[in-house]
Amino acid sequence: MTLAERLRTALGADAVITDPAVTSSYERDMMPLAPNGSPLAVVLPSSTAQVQAVVRICAELGVPIVPRGAGSGLSGAANAIDGCVMLVTTRMREILEIDADNRLAVVQPGVVNLDFRDAVEKNGLFYPPDPSSYDWCTIGGNVSTNAGGLCCVKYGVTTDSVLGLEVVLADGEVLRTGRRTVKGVAGYDLTKLFIGSEGTLGVVTEITVALRPLPHAPGTTIAAFPTIEAAGNAVSRIVREGVVPSLMEIMDATSIKAAEEYLKTELGAGQGCAALLLCQSDAGGEAARHELEVIEQVCHAAGADLAYTTHDLAEGQMLLQARRVVLTALELYGTWLTDDVCVPRTRIAELLTGCERISQECGLRIAVVGHAGDGNMHPTIVYDASSDDEFARARKAFDDILEVGLGLGGTVTGEHGVGKIKKDWLEREIGPVGMRVHRAVKAALDPGNLFNPGSMF
Amino acid sequence: MTLAERLRTALGADAVITDPAVTSSYERDMMPLAPNGSPLAVVLPSSTAQVQAVVRICAELGVPIVPRGAGSGLSGAANAIDGCVMLVTTRMREILEIDADNRLAVVQPGVVNLDFRDAVEKNGLFYPPDPSSYDWCTIGGNVSTNAGGLCCVKYGVTTDSVLGLEVVLADGEVLRTGRRTVKGVAGYDLTKLFIGSEGTLGVVTEITVALRPLPHAPGTTIAAFPTIEAAGNAVSRIVREGVVPSLMEIMDATSIKAAEEYLKTELGAGQGCAALLLCQSDAGGEAARHELEVIEQVCHAAGADLAYTTHDLAEGQMLLQARRVVLTALELYGTWLTDDVCVPRTRIAELLTGCERISQECGLRIAVVGHAGDGNMHPTIVYDASSDDEFARARKAFDDILEVGLGLGGTVTGEHGVGKIKKDWLEREIGPVGMRVHRAVKAALDPGNLFNPGSMF
Repeated sequence: MTLAERLRTALGADAVITDPAVTSSYERDMMPLAPNGSPLAVVLPSSTAQVQAVVRICAELGVPIVPRGAGSGLSGAANAIDGCVMLVTTRMREILEIDADNRLAVVQPGVVNLDFRDAVEKNGLFYPPDPSSYDWCTIGGNVSTNAGGLCCVKYGVTTDSVLGLEVVLADGEVLRTGRRTVKGVAGYDLTKLFIGSEGTLGVVTEITVALRPLPHAPGTTIAAFPTIEAAGNAVSRIVREGVVPSLMEIMDATSIKAAEEYLKTELGAGQGCAALLLCQSDAGGEAARHELEVIEQVCHAAGADLAYTTHDLAEGQMLLQARRVVLTALELYGTWLTDDVCVPRTRIAELLTGCERISQECGLRIAVVGHAGDGNMHPTIVYDASSDDEFARARKAFDDILEVGLGLGGTVTGEHGVGKIKKDWLEREIGPVGMRVHRAVKAALDPGNLFNPGSMF
Repeated sequence: MTLAERLRTALGADAVITDPAVTSSYERDMMPLAPNGSPLAVVLPSSTAQVQAVVRICAELGVPIVPRGAGSGLSGAANAIDGCVMLVTTRMREILEIDADNRLAVVQPGVVNLDFRDAVEKNGLFYPPDPSSYDWCTIGGNVSTNAGGLCCVKYGVTTDSVLGLEVVLADGEVLRTGRRTVKGVAGYDLTKLFIGSEGTLGVVTEITVALRPLPHAPGTTIAAFPTIEAAGNAVSRIVREGVVPSLMEIMDATSIKAAEEYLKTELGAGQGCAALLLCQSDAGGEAARHELEVIEQVCHAAGADLAYTTHDLAEGQMLLQARRVVLTALELYGTWLTDDVCVPRTRIAELLTGCERISQECGLRIAVVGHAGDGNMHPTIVYDASSDDEFARARKAFDDILEVGLGLGGTVTGEHGVGKIKKDWLEREIGPVGMRVHRAVKAALDPGNLFNPGSMF
């Protein structure tokens, strides 16, 4: 039997796609810089046993497997390579359990982040990780990339919410990592080894997550600064004051202008506003009022022209709109290419200044939005996709931004991952000993290089 | 040259001890059940370069290395094996950096937990992990065991506070894991792989930790219950109400009686108090008052005979004394042997009932204290160390408690580790596939089995 025949026998005909017109739609994620090849087949297993079957067939035939969720990634980690099988987890979309008394849930990898958030909210609980694509990305994809989001400044990234995993290994065996208890130190922390491994070590087939109590409805503070330095300074001072907001986002002048044009509103770009800071507190009552008062005072002291606080939920959401629409708004000017770099919180202004310089050098618009509370910035380069020259300049700017971030003591990826676009940068960041350990761990768990070969390193 | 001569040449004579009268004091940690052997030498390096030298010499000569901090561990993980070199990190006790603006610090492994807490507190910052031995255990030991403490219910365990590590590998090379930024997903999470690896994968020589704002002075609620079930029920209901106290400890009747005798005070054991629940909130102001009010109400609703709240710091500390003195108080009756098991929070009462049964079966006193907020219980068996029979019964009870914990969906170690006493239990908990992955990871990083051979698995 051919590969496709064996896969169809194991999974059923409707779970195996080989028509190139259809498989092509599974070939790549949302990162325009990453290359992709053509898969031999796309498989959509609906159970752990079916995933095991796919892994065993592919291992036997020496066919590489690229695991994939919804394809919302921004690093090409889920892009096909020529002759691979794309293992798509979107049919494994059951929420298997919500245990409110132990504040945990068990889900399959294909559950959409937003669907899960909504389901646990009905139980008065909260699942923090909220990547921007939360309305269509999957929990499995979030686990693979250790996804972050706007919540991280207070609630951490995906790994901070995961208690345990079920993983199909390269030999088709099922590994269970972690546990259902809040604490546990029996053996190595294999759970966190698989989280963020970008599909290179196994296929995650079940995820046990820790939940939190539902926070209070947030209050919101917005502050406008005449200079980037003043805004960066405000971030440092807020951290120094010991306030932990539930959200702290920054927008530079280019982002503000784009949002103004898109929303047809005034956000201060015309009045010399160089940066906006948006903060929320979900501490509730007196505590939230106190936190936002401190933030407002600190913003004024750091030189803000304006700082405004509301405890009205709808008004707060309206203010946040400016931040949320930036990527969409940038499409008014061209195709966007978003970078992902994380620097120590005290170096944010320097990163933004560096991006301004790079923008001038490459002659392209670069808008910076980012999670100021944890130094994770997304400088976004706008270019004309029909121009090879502009694409080449955008690509160079993308690398130049990483160079600046690394030079500021940062990392080349705060939350999007390495994938197929930052392999050289991973090596630069972690050095030869780090690379050697990565290769040793990969070889120990996937000696035949079955899973996502050539991705990450 | 002999091993000792080579070590003395590399480290200086005062850093190498071979006199058995002195080396014997480094042979074991605080766990009476664990076996230990005799080391060839004890070395006390004072720099990463010296650790590298020790590792290279031992690797060349095929002499195993057992890394060790202060020796406060409770699993025998830091116990000597015959013919090993004990690598003691207590001379590497410098706090290298406290960066208040980025809320991080860099420390050497031999820094004592309490010294570090005090140092960061002077900067208005907070390092949460607080194992009971915090006045003498080291941060390096805490990292090796992924130590917990009373803070975990709100602030997590050691791994949740570590951003990055410097580790000397089996070939003597220095690996740097993680980063100084709050977020980062460049490569596998090697930091968390080394945390909790109990000295089996490398020697940690530097630790970068994340700090938090100093919390408010805590308010305290104490509640007395007529039955264990009522107390367990109260814990579940507090969790269900969405309250996250900064401390939530439970004491059973045996612990209460011991504390009463030791403190020469009345805690209610005579009035039919079967369990005490001690809770704190460090949320401050209105938020803390609200949290403790909810806790008090829930305790009453769950059947508490008494519930009392104070926002006076000194009074709260006095109430906590009852919990803090239990192990010392048990020494009035004999030698204690403390177990460590973590169950889902809803199963605490069943675990306590199981311990009562085991106590009757073995004819030994078993006092249960534990971190109720995360289900991590420390049933403590009291026996006469001069009686082989009592020791054998204590040892059996120790295992019986793990059996009960595992049967309740728990783990055989919540925070003390596997070490040399729970190797069989690790296998029972994680199964053959888990063991195989552990061995593969160990072989990948330490192919010569240089570090702590025979410990953990």
